[in-house]
Amino acid sequence: MSPIDSGRHNRFLRALRQQPVDTTPIWVMRQAGRYLPEYRATRQRAGSFMNLCRSPELACEVTMQPLDRFELDAAILFSDILTIPDAMGLGLSFAEGEGPRFAYPLRTLDAISRLGVPDPEGELKYVPDAVRLIRRELDGSVPLIGFSGSPWTLACYMVEGGPTEKFAHIKKLMWDHPQALHQLLEVLTQSVQVYLEAQIAAGAQAVMIFDSWGGVLAPGDYREFSLANLAKLAQSINRGPDNVPIIVFSRGANGHLEALSQIGADALGVDWTVGLGEARKRTGGRVALQGNLDPAAMYAAPESLRQQVDMVLRDYGTGPGHIFNLGHGITPDVNPEQMRVLVDAVHELGRRRDLFA
Amino acid sequence: MSPIDSGRHNRFLRALRQQPVDTTPIWVMRQAGRYLPEYRATRQRAGSFMNLCRSPELACEVTMQPLDRFELDAAILFSDILTIPDAMGLGLSFAEGEGPRFAYPLRTLDAISRLGVPDPEGELKYVPDAVRLIRRELDGSVPLIGFSGSPWTLACYMVEGGPTEKFAHIKKLMWDHPQALHQLLEVLTQSVQVYLEAQIAAGAQAVMIFDSWGGVLAPGDYREFSLANLAKLAQSINRGPDNVPIIVFSRGANGHLEALSQIGADALGVDWTVGLGEARKRTGGRVALQGNLDPAAMYAAPESLRQQVDMVLRDYGTGPGHIFNLGHGITPDVNPEQMRVLVDAVHELGRRRDLFA
Repeated sequence: MSPIDSGRHNRFLRALRQQPVDTTPIWVMRQAGRYLPEYRATRQRAGSFMNLCRSPELACEVTMQPLDRFELDAAILFSDILTIPDAMGLGLSFAEGEGPRFAYPLRTLDAISRLGVPDPEGELKYVPDAVRLIRRELDGSVPLIGFSGSPWTLACYMVEGGPTEKFAHIKKLMWDHPQALHQLLEVLTQSVQVYLEAQIAAGAQAVMIFDSWGGVLAPGDYREFSLANLAKLAQSINRGPDNVPIIVFSRGANGHLEALSQIGADALGVDWTVGLGEARKRTGGRVALQGNLDPAAMYAAPESLRQQVDMVLRDYGTGPGHIFNLGHGITPDVNPEQMRVLVDAVHELGRRRDLFA
Repeated sequence: MSPIDSGRHNRFLRALRQQPVDTTPIWVMRQAGRYLPEYRATRQRAGSFMNLCRSPELACEVTMQPLDRFELDAAILFSDILTIPDAMGLGLSFAEGEGPRFAYPLRTLDAISRLGVPDPEGELKYVPDAVRLIRRELDGSVPLIGFSGSPWTLACYMVEGGPTEKFAHIKKLMWDHPQALHQLLEVLTQSVQVYLEAQIAAGAQAVMIFDSWGGVLAPGDYREFSLANLAKLAQSINRGPDNVPIIVFSRGANGHLEALSQIGADALGVDWTVGLGEARKRTGGRVALQGNLDPAAMYAAPESLRQQVDMVLRDYGTGPGHIFNLGHGITPDVNPEQMRVLVDAVHELGRRRDLFA
């Protein structure tokens, strides 16, 4: 037995708690996804992306696929960040290669006031069902991460209704009717809370909140409309008897790392546009850090990819509290063999380093 | 006469030099653009976007259009950031609503080694010609800004060849063949230098370098492949007898404001995801700041827009060195009347403030 009670089954959870580990754990955003031919096959059988999410059996199947191939240190529930608004009746669909679209975007104050908190063991039962099934399937091999979109990010999708770079509708709402947006964010914060608590009760061993659109806000707006509700969630979610850790990933919001490290989350996801050494300094050891290789490194030659991995590990430096990940999801046209190069490099180079200094 | 020799004809240049002004100057990125019906009419007459850029008469016409409507404090040369690669023979075109595309993207090391510096008074003569014509037309009313894409940003477009979110080709080149990318950046840096010097010689009274894709790089890569050449340019461009000021806008690179403030530029463009007060602190008075209203504020109700303007002005605080702008280009579906609200608010609220404290 290793001098530290750490190995594939628990190095992810230990790193999240800033405890020593035998080597740096790694998982990858969208690790169950389109770059895997077996994923594309299951997706085709499912008929639609939402069918895939709504079937616990298929969701379990694709969750397991990357773990059958690679020595990843965590599984992440296969689902979509927009299950909550879908359960609220907004009619989620995915056009091929286009991203999510709502049949009924929120465009009136009246529509906002009619929204209710969906029951996670009711219309969203397929999600905790998938968690229960995946936990059985994993059988203790690696921990399972549950997740949700953040209130601000859900609100963006719900109000915009489809792909946008301008965020014109949600920001107009924000500036012209801030109280209505706060009302919407309040019902979303409650919804995310009970949703994540249901995933924890069903067996999720860590939960991650994706604030994918936090970075589109000016600082004052960010603090009021995104950060405040991330803090509310981090502080009010019932984490269960195992005190399940919470990871917050507020994409493009590196200017707010100091503030994010003080909301009560255990770890922060970090994109690749800030150095982990700098992020570590600015977050003062209050949180573990998850990241942050430039996802484009997956297109580089294997030797370049290894070198980039080494630079990320060195930038983080010695001591525990680092979970390796890409700074954004793995892209669909990456060669799956590069995932093996990545995982092997992290485990090999991460072991070499003195993580217990 | 006002106690300060400042007014519409020179408050922009005075603010760039951090000299006192009567009120905060404003111009807007893409102020000559699709949100104006008269622009769309000229664009249609031109046949194609590149015809519009290549005709000094038409470029002059659209440059003047926003100035005929609004009390803007500067004109900016109407052109495209990709004129240099086009002159290098890459075959630039614009598909409707799609963004730029090159017929011959740079995909071999051999193609890179064959590139030469285009003569700004040769194949690019239409650009200094437009500058000369616009200066005559402006007749001293407001100063004229010339501009170029940054070497890194031009390289991105040239290697990718079309729209991308992944930057897979340019980053693969960067990691697998860094010397080849440095060779490309070297010829681009020389090209940008002579191009901007030709604009200055033709009458441009300030020049701006758009590093639109600086923000897609990890910090080490940013310093090596973007920042280094911005610094080279800021330090080596012959600014002429009037010591023409240089503005650098490295979009999404707010993590590098300290470093950017030390490369020798007179002003930095700032997007809306960092507060101007914070940016001012971090740049230590070494540069003027240009920005940074969230461009989505142009969709808000006039009263909200004015309030957002006030917040940007207050965030910058007292003292000279602020040029008001949006944090990114004005979007095509904005109501032109909002531009009037914006310009009036800046001039009125900027005057109210004690800029000479």
